[in-house]
Amino acid sequence: MASSYDQYREDMLGRANVADTPELIAYYKRLQALGTGALWTVANKIEPWEPVSSSVPMLWRYQDLRDDVLRALDLVTPEQAGRRVVYLENEGRSDVVAAVGWLYSGLQVMAPGECASSHRHSASALRFIMEGQGAFTNVDGHKMTLGANDFVLTPNGTWHEHGVSEDGTVCIWQDGLDIPLMNALEANFYEVHPDLNQAVSFPVDDSTATWAAAGLRPAGQSWSKRYSPLLKYEWAPTYDALTRFAKVTDGSPFDGVMMDYINPISGGPVMMTIGASMQLLRPGEHTKAHRQTGSFVYQCAKGAGYSVINGRRFDWRERDIFVVPAWMYHEHANASQTDDACLFAFHDLPVINALGLYREEAFGENGGHQPLIG
Amino acid sequence: MASSYDQYREDMLGRANVADTPELIAYYKRLQALGTGALWTVANKIEPWEPVSSSVPMLWRYQDLRDDVLRALDLVTPEQAGRRVVYLENEGRSDVVAAVGWLYSGLQVMAPGECASSHRHSASALRFIMEGQGAFTNVDGHKMTLGANDFVLTPNGTWHEHGVSEDGTVCIWQDGLDIPLMNALEANFYEVHPDLNQAVSFPVDDSTATWAAAGLRPAGQSWSKRYSPLLKYEWAPTYDALTRFAKVTDGSPFDGVMMDYINPISGGPVMMTIGASMQLLRPGEHTKAHRQTGSFVYQCAKGAGYSVINGRRFDWRERDIFVVPAWMYHEHANASQTDDACLFAFHDLPVINALGLYREEAFGENGGHQPLIG
Amino acid sequence: MASSYDQYREDMLGRANVADTPELIAYYKRLQALGTGALWTVANKIEPWEPVSSSVPMLWRYQDLRDDVLRALDLVTPEQAGRRVVYLENEGRSDVVAAVGWLYSGLQVMAPGECASSHRHSASALRFIMEGQGAFTNVDGHKMTLGANDFVLTPNGTWHEHGVSEDGTVCIWQDGLDIPLMNALEANFYEVHPDLNQAVSFPVDDSTATWAAAGLRPAGQSWSKRYSPLLKYEWAPTYDALTRFAKVTDGSPFDGVMMDYINPISGGPVMMTIGASMQLLRPGEHTKAHRQTGSFVYQCAKGAGYSVINGRRFDWRERDIFVVPAWMYHEHANASQTDDACLFAFHDLPVINALGLYREEAFGENGGHQPLIG
Amino acid sequence: MASSYDQYREDMLGRANVADTPELIAYYKRLQALGTGALWTVANKIEPWEPVSSSVPMLWRYQDLRDDVLRALDLVTPEQAGRRVVYLENEGRSDVVAAVGWLYSGLQVMAPGECASSHRHSASALRFIMEGQGAFTNVDGHKMTLGANDFVLTPNGTWHEHGVSEDGTVCIWQDGLDIPLMNALEANFYEVHPDLNQAVSFPVDDSTATWAAAGLRPAGQSWSKRYSPLLKYEWAPTYDALTRFAKVTDGSPFDGVMMDYINPISGGPVMMTIGASMQLLRPGEHTKAHRQTGSFVYQCAKGAGYSVINGRRFDWRERDIFVVPAWMYHEHANASQTDDACLFAFHDLPVINALGLYREEAFGENGGHQPLIG
Repeated sequence: MASSYDQYREDMLGRANVADTPELIAYYKRLQALGTGALWTVANKIEPWEPVSSSVPMLWRYQDLRDDVLRALDLVTPEQAGRRVVYLENEGRSDVVAAVGWLYSGLQVMAPGECASSHRHSASALRFIMEGQGAFTNVDGHKMTLGANDFVLTPNGTWHEHGVSEDGTVCIWQDGLDIPLMNALEANFYEVHPDLNQAVSFPVDDSTATWAAAGLRPAGQSWSKRYSPLLKYEWAPTYDALTRFAKVTDGSPFDGVMMDYINPISGGPVMMTIGASMQLLRPGEHTKAHRQTGSFVYQCAKGAGYSVINGRRFDWRERDIFVVPAWMYHEHANASQTDDACLFAFHDLPVINALGLYREEAFGENGGHQPLIG
Repeated sequence: MASSYDQYREDMLGRANVADTPELIAYYKRLQALGTGALWTVANKIEPWEPVSSSVPMLWRYQDLRDDVLRALDLVTPEQAGRRVVYLENEGRSDVVAAVGWLYSGLQVMAPGECASSHRHSASALRFIMEGQGAFTNVDGHKMTLGANDFVLTPNGTWHEHGVSEDGTVCIWQDGLDIPLMNALEANFYEVHPDLNQAVSFPVDDSTATWAAAGLRPAGQSWSKRYSPLLKYEWAPTYDALTRFAKVTDGSPFDGVMMDYINPISGGPVMMTIGASMQLLRPGEHTKAHRQTGSFVYQCAKGAGYSVINGRRFDWRERDIFVVPAWMYHEHANASQTDDACLFAFHDLPVINALGLYREEAFGENGGHQPLIG
Repeated sequence: MASSYDQYREDMLGRANVADTPELIAYYKRLQALGTGALWTVANKIEPWEPVSSSVPMLWRYQDLRDDVLRALDLVTPEQAGRRVVYLENEGRSDVVAAVGWLYSGLQVMAPGECASSHRHSASALRFIMEGQGAFTNVDGHKMTLGANDFVLTPNGTWHEHGVSEDGTVCIWQDGLDIPLMNALEANFYEVHPDLNQAVSFPVDDSTATWAAAGLRPAGQSWSKRYSPLLKYEWAPTYDALTRFAKVTDGSPFDGVMMDYINPISGGPVMMTIGASMQLLRPGEHTKAHRQTGSFVYQCAKGAGYSVINGRRFDWRERDIFVVPAWMYHEHANASQTDDACLFAFHDLPVINALGLYREEAFGENGGHQPLIG
Repeated sequence: MASSYDQYREDMLGRANVADTPELIAYYKRLQALGTGALWTVANKIEPWEPVSSSVPMLWRYQDLRDDVLRALDLVTPEQAGRRVVYLENEGRSDVVAAVGWLYSGLQVMAPGECASSHRHSASALRFIMEGQGAFTNVDGHKMTLGANDFVLTPNGTWHEHGVSEDGTVCIWQDGLDIPLMNALEANFYEVHPDLNQAVSFPVDDSTATWAAAGLRPAGQSWSKRYSPLLKYEWAPTYDALTRFAKVTDGSPFDGVMMDYINPISGGPVMMTIGASMQLLRPGEHTKAHRQTGSFVYQCAKGAGYSVINGRRFDWRERDIFVVPAWMYHEHANASQTDDACLFAFHDLPVINALGLYREEAFGENGGHQPLIG
């Protein structure tokens, strides 16, 4: 029970500014006994002037993690562990097992010939392939073969399982999910597939053969689900699209040449609660800083550089992962003067937008670049 | 730091089931030092089979609270307190100042001649008038006069201020907001109006004169905002609509004769993140139990009865407030054999639906009625 | 076969301007033999600078028509005639049996105890009740009782039948349909109900009891059809809504105080191809002229006045019908200095809007009032 | 004036069946004088059981037309003619200059170094390149270079101009427009560009560089127009998409392997009033017959074969154009056992769908194949 109730006072009209008195404290205690409280004791706390994220900016270097990720192969079996995953834990979000905000991220490893059991859940999931040959995913019977930097969906409610073919190599990928959000919204359901593994019901890679045609869609096919029927976005055409786009655009001052992965049926985000993008920073490009509502998990897909997040510099190279918490200024720099650099990102902007909460603000001073702290 | 990592084991294929060993514990500690963890130590916790709400069912009796609400008139001034509000605190959600889930509820009191300063915020807000004469709200220049059981919106981003006219009486109303959700999503912004009070820019009650026409809308008026242009829903036509509807419908087995308040522009919910409804229980009606994703705050608007929530009975009468946490079975009973009873409710179903997370399940046993606990 | 091919020449760059020569005429004839033609011989004709409607403004006075409409009762039986209807024929549109543009209008008469057989068609239909007691319509099993100035839908594809109860009086109403448009689009299908008459499957007038609640809709009811579930719009609440709205609005300079009938599910037009509105002209009000794409059929529902359409004045009083062709200037005047006047209208704006073709232009000269012609 | 009014009688309940009598004929004449008529004299005509198109199936062989199209180069200058186009005239639609239904089609020819003046209109337009090098189109400042079988949009309301570069060859393409529909809806506006020619405001071919990326779209770019921002659909990736899709689909029984050109922003049709598709018939494929509401203009883009339309066979080879009127059965056959054949088509299905009028019916007898007539 609080001993002081007036710790959030602000001396400004329109804000709560009530000093504790013995009479008030007695009143507060009586309220508390009734399952209530006085709003003015907490109003300034729960109505801040602007968001202050409980997450902190962090970067995980792949070279620091890779050995321990591989080590999981020896330490646990897929049968015991379900999945062999090392998850990324934000210092400010360990209570909800989030990498940032309400987003989960983990590095999964699988050996050739292994295949995890099939399940489904309310959380939306994606994977971004980091290394290895022969990985595949089966989503509702659509089997997809996967290569490095491919981006794959396993949307909310779909049966899915992952594996690596017998003739493949050890594979590592990033799993991105919104498990923490589903738990926060108290809407998380989980099921194991009754047969543990599902059949391959369609020609392999039919999803891309059917839906990955620019400006075209199969005639007469209806799709009533609220996620993309295109389940795999391959690296080669993605990088090709960025380089073509780079020739006709100045790009965004904050993000360089950036494209969002979309649901070709709607033009909207790939899933209802997670969106994703790939951005290209031209040789030497250093973007200006801005801040946004929404949380972001980045992975370097190509090249090397650094990002400045709320005044701290984070250097990244291929396969490193870093996070930008909500409403924190961030800017990106390509460290090379000759090669481009690419950042993959996933985020919760579809949630933010669906609820009408998107805001964005440029960093106005210093030519748009944050002074470094410390 | 955890001393045991295997507390969530489940002995079932597809679930994590790894016993601690010295080698594994060493591994876990190394992961922790890297800002990471092993998913299988928490997987069963963060991927539960179904949601288990952290909120508990609660009921606040108006007769228990009314004196202390009125007492605030003497204890603090509007200038000090901002608003004189006693908020309802769910036992399981005191950390986020929520009545249930991510929803806030409070009882506000105002004396004749008072008017709070104008502000706006990312949270969506509503009020439901409980007692008194002469209350009014000004939303973006639209002033509305308010009577008992009127339901009023102060949507996300609108300047709003509340007051009671000089010739009125002390007024009490329920404030409903999604402040906790806005904070959880790290998207809560707050502003005090530069003039502290805003002008009345339109004829008083123009909102209802313009938009409260059934099956009609003003020609040639566009509306691009994502909340209802109809800002006040009066009690008399609402009750009239329910009684007319009751003559041609059997009603819902779970909710009796229920209507949702809607945005007449879209037919959808009144605001993007909060919905509301009014339901009528016929004399003697006792509905069957079901459970839903989404959290609900109810207020009895007429009559008396009780609800059974997860096996516990809560008796209510006019102006009492109670909450139903997500995924908890609930059923409602009208205690009178001669008069109908009405329940007002607000909830976060617009969020749940926008994100594709709605689920509903009937209580299948015992004729649909929960056995009482204890 | 044309003897002259150069009748549409215009002497302006960007327009076709080719004089006939013997060589060209020979060329044109050869093209004709191939099932082709030279665009420049018709380009200026088929690409006019702005639309020139083939309809003419017309007004039908009810007092001129009423006797002959009633006479149909003696001349033909419902069994012979299907329906006893006198249709309104625009001078410029007799080939397609339209009152204006692609809209059909007719006056239907029925005697007490009669009931027409049930049918359905691709055309969307409405009726506006002009006189008599006891009329009813059954739309897909929803029976509705009808009084003067009530507006009723029988949407595209619904089984419908009309009748007058035994204890009623002779009834006359206006039928409005888009039969001409359905024929033009070659999409008109017609079916007679297998039982000739359909059952009343729901409580009488359940449509209004369920859906005619301002700002409310039945909870949990889905509606996937693309027309309004509210099938009847009664006169009394419509007039009441207009008078309330009149107190808080200046109204439109072109249309006075006008409201559109809407689908409460979507806020959009009542049917996909026909919209409708009711407008109130205050005592002495004389609106300014404008022109719009789209065709309009008006019926005076209350009072008396006149409209000026493309410079010609048309005086109207209760129950008179007149039409405004596309892109013709029109303005309305209430002839009374003490009473308001009301005009009901239906139109094809839902078609025009769905195809992105809406345009509107004010008459800029003479204070917005057209000089009268002749 | 009609001498007989009973020519549409049908002897069936629910249909009009009134024989002329002297008394009725007198009545009809009186009605006529009042600008009215008796519905039962025309009801069966204007409410047919199903649509009967006024268009006839036709095929235009390119080898028959090519010489005369080229001849236009000598006969008229672009300045005189506006555009040098030989339009296709359906025997049943010469009054509205349509190739079928409300769709216009013409073959335009241009010599190297020519450029037509810029204009815009309410009609939506497309072109499908048939032969030649160096053609280009400028749409609202976006210049696009064009090759054979490329499909290009010039949407409703956009400034556009066409030309052939100095170093190109004579070019011929098909123009497809809905001029007849715009005239029928009395919504056709036309403007010549004030400068006669517009500037190239963006990098050449920026439209494809920006929008022709499968499953990707430029981040942060809004697009509020109701047509596709992707203005050019090139042949190579289209054919490639069809061959990839062919590997994982059985295709449609009626259309083989077919894809619709789409607006990548919405997943919907490329323009609001005209849609388009490309279909591939596998070697030896002969589809089954069906009929649809909506009118179709086909052009063979590759290979040779024939279509049977309402029982008549039409043989086609590369660049031939043929039309399928609304609600006529049609089936397609690839004449080759070794090569695939491709048909480009444009149609008014976006109109039909926007108005809720789509219907489709398979030919049920004879294994789905129409018996040939005559």
